[in-house]
Amino acid sequence: MQVAYTPEEIAAIVSPQRTSGRTTEKIRDIASLKSAQPGDLSFLGTPKYRAEVAATRASLVLVPLDHVGEPQANQLFFFVEKPSVALARLCARIEQSLWPHPPAGVHPSAVIAPGARVSPQATVGPLCIVEDGAAIGAGTVLQANVFVGANASVGEQCWIQAGCIVASGCELRNRVRLQPGVVIGSDGFGYEFVNGRHEKIPQIGIVIVEDDVEIGANSTVDRARFSRTVVGEGTKIDNLVQVGHNVLIGKHCILCAQVGIAGSTTLEDYVVLGGQAGVGGHITLGKGTKGGGQAGIASDTAPGSYLNGTPAIPYMTERRLAILHQKLPELFKRVEFLESRLK
Amino acid sequence: MQVAYTPEEIAAIVSPQRTSGRTTEKIRDIASLKSAQPGDLSFLGTPKYRAEVAATRASLVLVPLDHVGEPQANQLFFFVEKPSVALARLCARIEQSLWPHPPAGVHPSAVIAPGARVSPQATVGPLCIVEDGAAIGAGTVLQANVFVGANASVGEQCWIQAGCIVASGCELRNRVRLQPGVVIGSDGFGYEFVNGRHEKIPQIGIVIVEDDVEIGANSTVDRARFSRTVVGEGTKIDNLVQVGHNVLIGKHCILCAQVGIAGSTTLEDYVVLGGQAGVGGHITLGKGTKGGGQAGIASDTAPGSYLNGTPAIPYMTERRLAILHQKLPELFKRVEFLESRLK
Amino acid sequence: MQVAYTPEEIAAIVSPQRTSGRTTEKIRDIASLKSAQPGDLSFLGTPKYRAEVAATRASLVLVPLDHVGEPQANQLFFFVEKPSVALARLCARIEQSLWPHPPAGVHPSAVIAPGARVSPQATVGPLCIVEDGAAIGAGTVLQANVFVGANASVGEQCWIQAGCIVASGCELRNRVRLQPGVVIGSDGFGYEFVNGRHEKIPQIGIVIVEDDVEIGANSTVDRARFSRTVVGEGTKIDNLVQVGHNVLIGKHCILCAQVGIAGSTTLEDYVVLGGQAGVGGHITLGKGTKGGGQAGIASDTAPGSYLNGTPAIPYMTERRLAILHQKLPELFKRVEFLESRLK
Repeated sequence: MQVAYTPEEIAAIVSPQRTSGRTTEKIRDIASLKSAQPGDLSFLGTPKYRAEVAATRASLVLVPLDHVGEPQANQLFFFVEKPSVALARLCARIEQSLWPHPPAGVHPSAVIAPGARVSPQATVGPLCIVEDGAAIGAGTVLQANVFVGANASVGEQCWIQAGCIVASGCELRNRVRLQPGVVIGSDGFGYEFVNGRHEKIPQIGIVIVEDDVEIGANSTVDRARFSRTVVGEGTKIDNLVQVGHNVLIGKHCILCAQVGIAGSTTLEDYVVLGGQAGVGGHITLGKGTKGGGQAGIASDTAPGSYLNGTPAIPYMTERRLAILHQKLPELFKRVEFLESRLK
Repeated sequence: MQVAYTPEEIAAIVSPQRTSGRTTEKIRDIASLKSAQPGDLSFLGTPKYRAEVAATRASLVLVPLDHVGEPQANQLFFFVEKPSVALARLCARIEQSLWPHPPAGVHPSAVIAPGARVSPQATVGPLCIVEDGAAIGAGTVLQANVFVGANASVGEQCWIQAGCIVASGCELRNRVRLQPGVVIGSDGFGYEFVNGRHEKIPQIGIVIVEDDVEIGANSTVDRARFSRTVVGEGTKIDNLVQVGHNVLIGKHCILCAQVGIAGSTTLEDYVVLGGQAGVGGHITLGKGTKGGGQAGIASDTAPGSYLNGTPAIPYMTERRLAILHQKLPELFKRVEFLESRLK
Repeated sequence: MQVAYTPEEIAAIVSPQRTSGRTTEKIRDIASLKSAQPGDLSFLGTPKYRAEVAATRASLVLVPLDHVGEPQANQLFFFVEKPSVALARLCARIEQSLWPHPPAGVHPSAVIAPGARVSPQATVGPLCIVEDGAAIGAGTVLQANVFVGANASVGEQCWIQAGCIVASGCELRNRVRLQPGVVIGSDGFGYEFVNGRHEKIPQIGIVIVEDDVEIGANSTVDRARFSRTVVGEGTKIDNLVQVGHNVLIGKHCILCAQVGIAGSTTLEDYVVLGGQAGVGGHITLGKGTKGGGQAGIASDTAPGSYLNGTPAIPYMTERRLAILHQKLPELFKRVEFLESRLK
């Protein structure tokens, strides 16, 4: 952050219902109650940390309306309904000032094929490549070093960061955000074993990334063998995630970092997968299924399932079995004792 | 896909032994029996889905010679020996029409060092970099944004997609396919712990990728500490896979997505590793070893082993133990009952 | 390697205390005792391989002072105090000759914003992008295709390889080494669930990478929600590792390939995590904590802990339980027998 806000400017953004105390500091950063220094804004996001308010060195603290306690010297409290919402509003404002939407236009170093259609309201940054037949929509920004292959399309208001690759024929709809290094449309992993060699099965389908999807850095989404791989509307994918060919991800799913989904699997809406979870191929995870971190899910799940472990089983069962597993030394001793009694 | 084939054009490719029915549709896409719409071609790949043929909306269906049943209105059946082989042949043809081999030549935006040797039959796309002493063979395509470091070499008929990096001195042989974002020749991960700090051990070896290897998007293969890391002929590697320094991968292996192989390990020919499997360092997996998804293999394996779990043990044993693990609550109760009897 | 050293040149580098035998070969490569060929140098790094010295075909062998045995025909022994240290010294020399520090200056194809500050002692390679307000320090090399975002800074003597991305506002200190494809400063993964949709929480913090850090190929480090994500001095990170937002990694940690650290977690100094290990969010790993490969650590750890398994428990306990787990079939039989006795 390279910002400085007066308390008055922040009040204008978060609209406190009342205030207490005063500070001469300008606010230059945001920090947790514990780590804050003078010049920082902090906030009481959950009652759990209430005791930390009295000790924080933050110059400005967002506290809930019912908070009891007085600011220290050169410290200001803003009483707001929900400090976390007020903070989000402030952060959104800071985000805009840190990274204003760049002006439309194509950087002279970008390589745009004659048959590409780039909206005059789009921004194409340095060293981007847009191939023949590709389309870039209004309000979309290709940051830098982005490759959009032949006949691919990127919709409106998308934010495609440095080093992303959208391979031939793939389609990003609107307001899609790709973090740096994302690959959309790599070939699916399909071979036929013939005479001791793996013969490639052509992968001629595409990837469709629907509206309001965000995909994390260096994640990869394979194109379909034929037809399409789909990432559904509003789904959020973290870094280094692998999505196999012909996978159909529903709407509003959450895939944490390093998750892997094997080919032809369907995730219905609102599925949530913890970090490093793996999902086998050709199965369906029912609506709202949750998988724990590192879980290995190998078969269909009912809607609302919550699974853990490898192979994944219902979460509570897995937890109970894990506790019994830890009692194995005791169990072996008990059996030994029984045996000694029956000799 | 942006194609349209008449039934006659498809007949010319798949050579049906006989046909039944007729359709006025042009074929514009391929889909499973269940999801097909008018204008789609579908196929009966395995007898398991036979019942779906009668209900499919596909305009053209590839069925095996012994298939019993009649097409619906405006629907055409092609009877072929093996529908999956016929489909592969069709897909290969579509692939060619979608992505014809680009003409040879160097894009004016590419940066070719004076000492690089680029075959006049090679294609070097926009914003590629080929450094001094590097060589690019005939028929090879560097798609775009590809970096080939000093003294590295890429053989003939290779297909190196956007954003790939082949670091200094590394060697790709012939018909190697790299999906986007692959890194060949990053430094191996080696340090010596001296006076409380990790001192880097220089990594001065190379990577050799033999003929007909394919490597998936954003996968990484480290250069050797000295000597070479090898990916053997015909091996296929999926996305986001990590291959450590001095690893020797044999011929015709299959490494699914997110597999990791630690340093100095040898995989003999025909090893197959499921997604997210991990293999420890300095061990040897015997010929044809199979590891399940998420398996953690930490010691040598005999040829033909099939392992699962972490630490990996023989597959059937692991399955049996997993079942007994789920019976632990029952076992604890049984022991408790025995104890009550012996009080 | 494309080098050739005479035995005399190597003697000048490793300073043997005495020598035995002679060779007419120039040394062109380094190999293990077992795989070495004429023209190779090899070494006895650990007594374990002593027997292999007599059979090695290496032309030159580094052996410890107390080694007993004579070289074969056309073979030379160099007796040194620690062969592994002598080898490291030799490799460092070879590294310098293979990859000499490139001359300072900006490649004409690089895109440097007018407001960027690039040291005249820095090297900016082909097709690099340095945005407004960014700073590149003396002695630093941006190899090729590197993106340094607005207001980001790269310190002195850094080595940033092809395809790396340092996003806006992030800070690399001195002697930082990034292997190809690293992403520093992707957005943290944070959403608030509002009316059935995941609303993005702005991620306006930065990443700080301290002195002497090395990060492996295609690894990703997320920017903080606010404040900073930190990779501490001297820490070494392998390939395809994910570091979440607001993670604080201490000094001299080791993170092997494909490790994932969830958001807001702290690693104190000297933490070591094996390949594919996962660490949950909002926890603290005490100083010197070790986690095994594929371990899943979900709660705070005491300094010096050594953990294994998912969920991770103390290493020795985990090993003991794994052994008992394998005895479950026997235990079930023993209980059955007891039951039969008590019928």
